[in-house]
Amino acid sequence: METTNKFMKEAIRLSIEKMRAGNGGPFGAVVVKDGEIIARGFNQVTSSNDPTAHAEMVAIREACSKLGSFQLTGCEIYTSCEPCPMCLGAIYWARPDKVYYANTKEGAAAIDFDDQFIYEEIDLPISDRKMPFIHMMEKEAKVAFDEWADKQDKIEY
Amino acid sequence: METTNKFMKEAIRLSIEKMRAGNGGPFGAVVVKDGEIIARGFNQVTSSNDPTAHAEMVAIREACSKLGSFQLTGCEIYTSCEPCPMCLGAIYWARPDKVYYANTKEGAAAIDFDDQFIYEEIDLPISDRKMPFIHMMEKEAKVAFDEWADKQDKIEY
Repeated sequence: METTNKFMKEAIRLSIEKMRAGNGGPFGAVVVKDGEIIARGFNQVTSSNDPTAHAEMVAIREACSKLGSFQLTGCEIYTSCEPCPMCLGAIYWARPDKVYYANTKEGAAAIDFDDQFIYEEIDLPISDRKMPFIHMMEKEAKVAFDEWADKQDKIEY
Repeated sequence: METTNKFMKEAIRLSIEKMRAGNGGPFGAVVVKDGEIIARGFNQVTSSNDPTAHAEMVAIREACSKLGSFQLTGCEIYTSCEPCPMCLGAIYWARPDKVYYANTKEGAAAIDFDDQFIYEEIDLPISDRKMPFIHMMEKEAKVAFDEWADKQDKIEY
């Protein structure tokens, strides 16, 4: 538990200090491999005009860049808050071994972050969502999928 | 419908040509504002070692950078495939007016993309998920949330 605490402490430190410095919301994350922090991330949505720049996303991108891999096999992510659906999706695509989190999505909702709303929307059939999603031109688009299925030199992910 | 088709056609073109060029999976997207394409994206997960580099993510980041805003108010996104949970989350955070999509998540699952698995995992209680999520140190982390709640000069998003 000692080691674990050290990494989460760093994620929490980032969440507080970078918020104070005006980078964005109160969120921090680190990626750990072989007992070492290989990447740090903190929320910088408003300071970098990037709605995808959540702490986990920044840390995942940095870690993958360092490892020269699109996978975080053998890594653990420590995040100061339970991931929103976007970050959760990114985590599944990156496939670390384990995720540690401190604040909860209910805590995030209590300080007015939209996570809960997004979780609810994802569960709804597309036609019932508040954001309009319109389906069109599937036949034309499917050409790409058929070609991918047959592609001999593809790199799967 | 004429205008609409033109933008989706471009998203589909990107999905095919960039896949053929070896950038990554068969996915393309464009962001449209005031009848003009302001950003293009295509999947480059494997070519850029970035598991977050899905077509929609790339297009959203590019569009926000161009607009100098972390919001896509007044914009529409055309994507060659129904967004995965990560991209869906990013879309909700970016808040465009509308999303058009062509291929479906069922189509993506049929050519072995993990979207469906991620959708299923998101719905499970954390303790039932295949990826281990471990809760710890909430009390320490909540300091950041309390401070955010009281912060006078924060930029909400």
